[in-house]
Amino acid sequence: MAQLPKPLQELVDAFRKFPGVGDKNAQRFTFHLLRQSPADLKALSERIASLPARVTRCSVCGLVDEASPCRFDRDPSRDQTTVCVVAETPDVSVIEQSGEYHGRYHVLGGVLNPLEGVTPDQLNLASLLERVKTDHVREVIIATNPDMEGETTALHLKKILRPLGVTVTRLGRGLPMGATLEYADEVTVANALRGRQNA
Amino acid sequence: MAQLPKPLQELVDAFRKFPGVGDKNAQRFTFHLLRQSPADLKALSERIASLPARVTRCSVCGLVDEASPCRFDRDPSRDQTTVCVVAETPDVSVIEQSGEYHGRYHVLGGVLNPLEGVTPDQLNLASLLERVKTDHVREVIIATNPDMEGETTALHLKKILRPLGVTVTRLGRGLPMGATLEYADEVTVANALRGRQNA
Repeated sequence: MAQLPKPLQELVDAFRKFPGVGDKNAQRFTFHLLRQSPADLKALSERIASLPARVTRCSVCGLVDEASPCRFDRDPSRDQTTVCVVAETPDVSVIEQSGEYHGRYHVLGGVLNPLEGVTPDQLNLASLLERVKTDHVREVIIATNPDMEGETTALHLKKILRPLGVTVTRLGRGLPMGATLEYADEVTVANALRGRQNA
Repeated sequence: MAQLPKPLQELVDAFRKFPGVGDKNAQRFTFHLLRQSPADLKALSERIASLPARVTRCSVCGLVDEASPCRFDRDPSRDQTTVCVVAETPDVSVIEQSGEYHGRYHVLGGVLNPLEGVTPDQLNLASLLERVKTDHVREVIIATNPDMEGETTALHLKKILRPLGVTVTRLGRGLPMGATLEYADEVTVANALRGRQNA
């Protein structure tokens, strides 16, 4: 058995394409499935196959949700004058979980990455500009990651949004909760100093 | 969105049951699937659902394979007088990849773990004894992991196999390839000394 039996190897190959999954883990996942009941496998299989039919991208903000417009854009209690721009749908859950935000969202569907050929026209930007122009948006909060691509995207957003007269802000920088100053990197410390607040 | 949309959350919940997969990774897997084409999702889904119908346990050795008897027990070129006992099917691939073994296998389907209630009658032992008695087996190589449960299982195997007059051996212990003596743990060094060979 230089290789596994074909039905297993096919699954290992499929799992290897999952993000961060190597050969060993793909094998572990496959053998995990082998130990499940046929009914459980059928349930999982149906969830996977039915995914495209059961979710859609919100036509307003680009969020992946069960309906379009998404739950936020349908919800009159969410502040329509504030839009938080994120790279991908999962980022929205993280912001929601903080309990600090009650506005709308806009999902770019990626970040600018010239090296990998991701240019502004591939991001969900046109509808953002449209929204800002017509929807009484007063503030756009940029919530991209604090890394190369996230920063590049934020700069681009600032450049195209400022002319529209809207306030453009970014998530605060500084020490994360539970951090040890001694081990913090210098950029984080510099950001924490620049972003210092009254005690 | 305290939670994800239901179709996504269901998949996250399913992936969380995979070995070693936490909340964040289950989410990453789910969003990875979202980016696949419906055809790819259908293919993966079918592989999962058809798994029970496409593989079986070998009636001779317990290996998970496409047919029973498995490819090893059907293959007359594999030495029938040597049986290598492993805990689970994936262990077989590892031994095959070494290119050092040309006998048959026996898959226990687990290891003894009294704390978790895994007792000898839950392992594939009866057919091993049967085989040793009737199949001209001369040597049984125990290839369980060098941990608590693997050692317990090996001791039990030794106890039940010895009375049958068969040679019982275990995989050699010592320094793994590429190891640094300085960082080797004391049990490994002790095993390497005990298992020393002529240079």
